[in-house]
Amino acid sequence: MTTYTAINLVKRPSGGPITADLFASVKKQMPTIGEGQFLVKQNHMSLDPAMFGWMSPDTNSYIPPVALGDVMRSSGIGEIVESNHPDFKVGERVMGMMGWQEYFLSNGQGLNKVAAPLPDEAILSIFALPGLTATQGLFNVGKPQKGETIVVTGAAGSVGTIVGQLAKAEGLRVIGVVGSDEKADWIVNELGFDAAINYKSDNLDDQLASHAPDGIDILFENTGGPIQSMIVDRMNAHGRVVVCGLIADYSKQVPTPGPSWMNVIKRRLTIQGFTMPDHFHEIPTLLEKLTPYVMAGKIKHRSHVLEGLESAIDGLNLFFTGENKGKLLVKL
Amino acid sequence: MTTYTAINLVKRPSGGPITADLFASVKKQMPTIGEGQFLVKQNHMSLDPAMFGWMSPDTNSYIPPVALGDVMRSSGIGEIVESNHPDFKVGERVMGMMGWQEYFLSNGQGLNKVAAPLPDEAILSIFALPGLTATQGLFNVGKPQKGETIVVTGAAGSVGTIVGQLAKAEGLRVIGVVGSDEKADWIVNELGFDAAINYKSDNLDDQLASHAPDGIDILFENTGGPIQSMIVDRMNAHGRVVVCGLIADYSKQVPTPGPSWMNVIKRRLTIQGFTMPDHFHEIPTLLEKLTPYVMAGKIKHRSHVLEGLESAIDGLNLFFTGENKGKLLVKL
Repeated sequence: MTTYTAINLVKRPSGGPITADLFASVKKQMPTIGEGQFLVKQNHMSLDPAMFGWMSPDTNSYIPPVALGDVMRSSGIGEIVESNHPDFKVGERVMGMMGWQEYFLSNGQGLNKVAAPLPDEAILSIFALPGLTATQGLFNVGKPQKGETIVVTGAAGSVGTIVGQLAKAEGLRVIGVVGSDEKADWIVNELGFDAAINYKSDNLDDQLASHAPDGIDILFENTGGPIQSMIVDRMNAHGRVVVCGLIADYSKQVPTPGPSWMNVIKRRLTIQGFTMPDHFHEIPTLLEKLTPYVMAGKIKHRSHVLEGLESAIDGLNLFFTGENKGKLLVKL
Repeated sequence: MTTYTAINLVKRPSGGPITADLFASVKKQMPTIGEGQFLVKQNHMSLDPAMFGWMSPDTNSYIPPVALGDVMRSSGIGEIVESNHPDFKVGERVMGMMGWQEYFLSNGQGLNKVAAPLPDEAILSIFALPGLTATQGLFNVGKPQKGETIVVTGAAGSVGTIVGQLAKAEGLRVIGVVGSDEKADWIVNELGFDAAINYKSDNLDDQLASHAPDGIDILFENTGGPIQSMIVDRMNAHGRVVVCGLIADYSKQVPTPGPSWMNVIKRRLTIQGFTMPDHFHEIPTLLEKLTPYVMAGKIKHRSHVLEGLESAIDGLNLFFTGENKGKLLVKL
């Protein structure tokens, strides 16, 4: 084998579904490793809603966009197959931003060894971006207090599942908003949420009222959509809104307006956005916070694994349709 | 004289202008003061946008609404005319929530003596609700840093004028949004704002772009209205929005939607509402922060004084039209 496959971003999305013409599959020459370098064969890569931001041209965003013609950005796990680096040995597993490609040449920078005896799927579903995002957003932005009520949108998603389970472990009343009855059933009966609301059903406001009889203290927002303002209307004084994602808006050219700020005054709400690149230097602290919950068996997950590098492209559309069941991964 | 006049709230506003039928003017018997009591003749009372909240029936609001049939709530300054209280002497000036009435019977609770050798108008315009609100909102919510750019809406209003002058004294670039060219001229040439934008003019977004070439770090929001989302669109990463008032929405039955939360994520914004009753216990600290700026001559003000108790009713509509020039007060 003298070549490998990579997928480059060649055109920016302009709203609507992700189409194949945004990307180009290319063959690359297998590199020769130099002194202090090693070669990783990537086995699993992660698909995340953050990718819509990385593809967008908005230079005011939190991280530079992927340049046109560059390999598409993603995190993944692989195995070292060749090495001239003293600290990285052949056979070891490493995790990091390796992009949409089968092989990755590295000098070690930005890659971390995976020591935990867990399969790739579990590592990428819990200890990578989803778990770090959930931990930072819930604890450091949401500031949960035992006995409070939290609503999590996108509750069956990779971040939402972890947020809900962490909040439950902290003694909050946890209500998840999802897009199917199957997911509603799963988060309540398997993950232990107190209640679930299918946002496609009727009487959303009545459901909120009955599931949150004491009002809502925290909204962990992953989706946007019409239920957003109904939730804000039911928030208690000093409530916190953690704005983590707005998947319902990522494919729209003109984003939907948000709720009036009237309740922000009357209830003294705080609405705060965050993204993980601001907190990469805090990853050790975040993992220290997250790990005990995982070790205590309080964080379950499920993965939705697509097969083959090319499946990543259309796979992104599953975020819009909500048809993925669990954390989206691509097996190479 | 054996009676005095008071104005009671008898009906709640339901959107639209404030009308006389919401109030009833009543004659009350002059009270006989008991042991430990004193009688205040109120000389000036303050009209504030917060009154729209106090008249509304929303019990989830930050302070209980005025009960129907009760005297309308307001702060004011008066002179003690009779006293059986050892600490409050005839002739002393006191300030506090005395309501829409000519006389106020007190045991001292909730009233503070006015020692500063300043006229009532200056006290009510700076050291009462407007100055406390500006100080709390700017410093404790907005967290201004020298060299940053702040946009203040309602910039010629009682709170906005003080926010802008405090921010200027702190070394920020200060842009005020107002509703007339006269006010624009006043805040720039008299109060020292760096720039003013009349929200009734064209090309608001172009004006924002040219006055805030480095983007906007803080929005101090007093008004709402269409310029709100243009300002948010120009906010820098880690920007702060201080939500203090939404006068453009107080007379609407259905409040206007707010900006999309997309920028809240991308720019990691914090949008935070506050109201002063949460901070009444911090008033000494706030006054300690505010006073040096006033003493250094950095906080100018102007008052718009209406004559007679009854003028308060229609006077509230000046907040909607923006026709008041300076802090609204009623001289009794």
